[in-house]
Amino acid sequence: MTFNPVLDGLKNYEAGKPIELVVRDYGIAPQDVIKLASNENPRGCSLGVLAAMQQESTRAHLYPDDSMYELKDGLASRFGVKKENVIIGAGSDQVIGFALHAKANPNQAILMAGVTFAMYEIYGKQTGATILKTPSKMHNLEDFKQMLATHKGAIGVLFLCLPNNPLGEALDADEVKLFLREVDPNILVVVDGAYQEYASYKDQTKALDPRALIEEFPNVLYLGTFSKAYGLGGMRCGYGIGEAGLIHTLHKLRPPFNITTLSLKAGIEALKDEGFVARCMEENFSEMKRYEAEARALGFDFIESYTNFITLEFPEGKIASKIAQSLLEKGIIIRDLSAYGMNAVRVTIGTPEQNSRFFENFKRVYC
Amino acid sequence: MTFNPVLDGLKNYEAGKPIELVVRDYGIAPQDVIKLASNENPRGCSLGVLAAMQQESTRAHLYPDDSMYELKDGLASRFGVKKENVIIGAGSDQVIGFALHAKANPNQAILMAGVTFAMYEIYGKQTGATILKTPSKMHNLEDFKQMLATHKGAIGVLFLCLPNNPLGEALDADEVKLFLREVDPNILVVVDGAYQEYASYKDQTKALDPRALIEEFPNVLYLGTFSKAYGLGGMRCGYGIGEAGLIHTLHKLRPPFNITTLSLKAGIEALKDEGFVARCMEENFSEMKRYEAEARALGFDFIESYTNFITLEFPEGKIASKIAQSLLEKGIIIRDLSAYGMNAVRVTIGTPEQNSRFFENFKRVYC
Repeated sequence: MTFNPVLDGLKNYEAGKPIELVVRDYGIAPQDVIKLASNENPRGCSLGVLAAMQQESTRAHLYPDDSMYELKDGLASRFGVKKENVIIGAGSDQVIGFALHAKANPNQAILMAGVTFAMYEIYGKQTGATILKTPSKMHNLEDFKQMLATHKGAIGVLFLCLPNNPLGEALDADEVKLFLREVDPNILVVVDGAYQEYASYKDQTKALDPRALIEEFPNVLYLGTFSKAYGLGGMRCGYGIGEAGLIHTLHKLRPPFNITTLSLKAGIEALKDEGFVARCMEENFSEMKRYEAEARALGFDFIESYTNFITLEFPEGKIASKIAQSLLEKGIIIRDLSAYGMNAVRVTIGTPEQNSRFFENFKRVYC
Repeated sequence: MTFNPVLDGLKNYEAGKPIELVVRDYGIAPQDVIKLASNENPRGCSLGVLAAMQQESTRAHLYPDDSMYELKDGLASRFGVKKENVIIGAGSDQVIGFALHAKANPNQAILMAGVTFAMYEIYGKQTGATILKTPSKMHNLEDFKQMLATHKGAIGVLFLCLPNNPLGEALDADEVKLFLREVDPNILVVVDGAYQEYASYKDQTKALDPRALIEEFPNVLYLGTFSKAYGLGGMRCGYGIGEAGLIHTLHKLRPPFNITTLSLKAGIEALKDEGFVARCMEENFSEMKRYEAEARALGFDFIESYTNFITLEFPEGKIASKIAQSLLEKGIIIRDLSAYGMNAVRVTIGTPEQNSRFFENFKRVYC
């Protein structure tokens, strides 16, 4: 059978190894596996959200309220926008998909940082658009400007991942605003704030305000998620915030019932417990200091991170992929960044106990 | 901002009214609302699945095993196929999306029955393909053959919804096989078996065997779901079964982590409790007889149904949309089929108590 030619250029996505796979492949007991590979919140979700999900399980046979009224309302209140400015996705990933399918096509290009969230490229290729990356791995706005000038009129969508996954850097909100003023208003700019709760906790100058962004820039789509700070990665619930006309257009591509009944409930409840998020942020950055100290002690680099992970860069002679593999065999899953042309690994900040076990094993493998 | 022109032809999907909306709009207490509009299993899911979801809620922060090993394994065993023949979707809806985006394009047409599952057309239009429907509302294979002959070479995807939603009719498995032998093997035939558990319980001659289908027809994609017989509509979990090469291609369009951690667990557990499904089927068809008797007593038509719903067709002078609206105001949600050019409503078979309340109110509204 023949398929659409755009599929020829697509590969199957390789997700981080789940605990189940390590249990199967290395015969390690599930309770002995530590997963620091997917930037999940090691504290899980808040107890209120857990209780709400367990209760809502008795309603799992019912489709969710497809208007997602209550969740949109909660997000609108949180960000000082209207419900008409909000779209819900199965993870913010799905909203990336809506944005790309709405705007990108084989005659256009999509611009992003040199090393950034893999889904931009994966979904981007599905539209047949050309993928352009800045020479700098991290977000460098001068690079972005240069690329915009070089490819004037050809770029349909531009991604800013702030803070950036998988590297962890962030930009100042002020410089982002100045940059956006220079971008052609017919370019859809996706500002991915999946880790904004972390960045704004650590450094207010990195905090992006979705309301201010979309009020000034109708071509900006801000993304947020319940997967990280709220500890609901497994529930696939994220959102986009943008000017009402943009959001209306994206809704045309949204499949009905695109999140589960339990995810909807979890999102609604999660917004009610900001204390939980604050406690997670505090522990995250206090534990991150241990990683930074470890790197200094062992003499390798790390990227200053505004997220719940840290990217460790190794000197010549130490091979990231081998280190990651050795740790995997000990039941510790981290993310090898070799495929990004870096001799580096990305490690999710775990609980204090998980991090201690990481350090203990890492030293053995590294030294 | 300009968007891709294909969006101009797209409308936002109007889902059946959720209980939440009726509570909001008519001030009826949630426990007094009966939803017989979305073909949900009124018995919910099995108790084993419920317990598994509640336990798995403590793992909601973890992304699911993206290989979906255990669920694919369970489905492969159930249907006597290999894991490589299985793809998992966020509801079988999502697999419909993969199939259409893989195969359909603006130069092609998509063929389906006159009145059938709305998502075929909704996803189909996203690809820019032309939508073709048979003159017959119900599945009529002679009609399909005629359309195939008329549009020879132009049809990329053909949908058979067996049994058909929203009408409820089914075709004999033997006639389906004979028909498929006449279809150009470069046409992707999607055989949507979302209600097959019901059809095969009621009448074995309507039972489709996915294994036999995909062995003889590499161009057939069989769809199944946990939303109906398994009572997990709110968990968004379905699957496609097809020849390994076809399934590999569809995986290129599957977003990672496309179902939730809890949905994955629910699907795995659901396959272990077939007794639950059998009890639901028994009650469903015993209760359906009450609807048939009611229709005969009040003197209107119904379509013989192989599903968990029944389509009631009213004579002139009785207006389906008014009947549906009057019931809605009494807290009973059913589906008005006027938009399909029919003076009919679709009613999901509820529990005995729900059905009794339906009859009681329906009589007042109808007579």
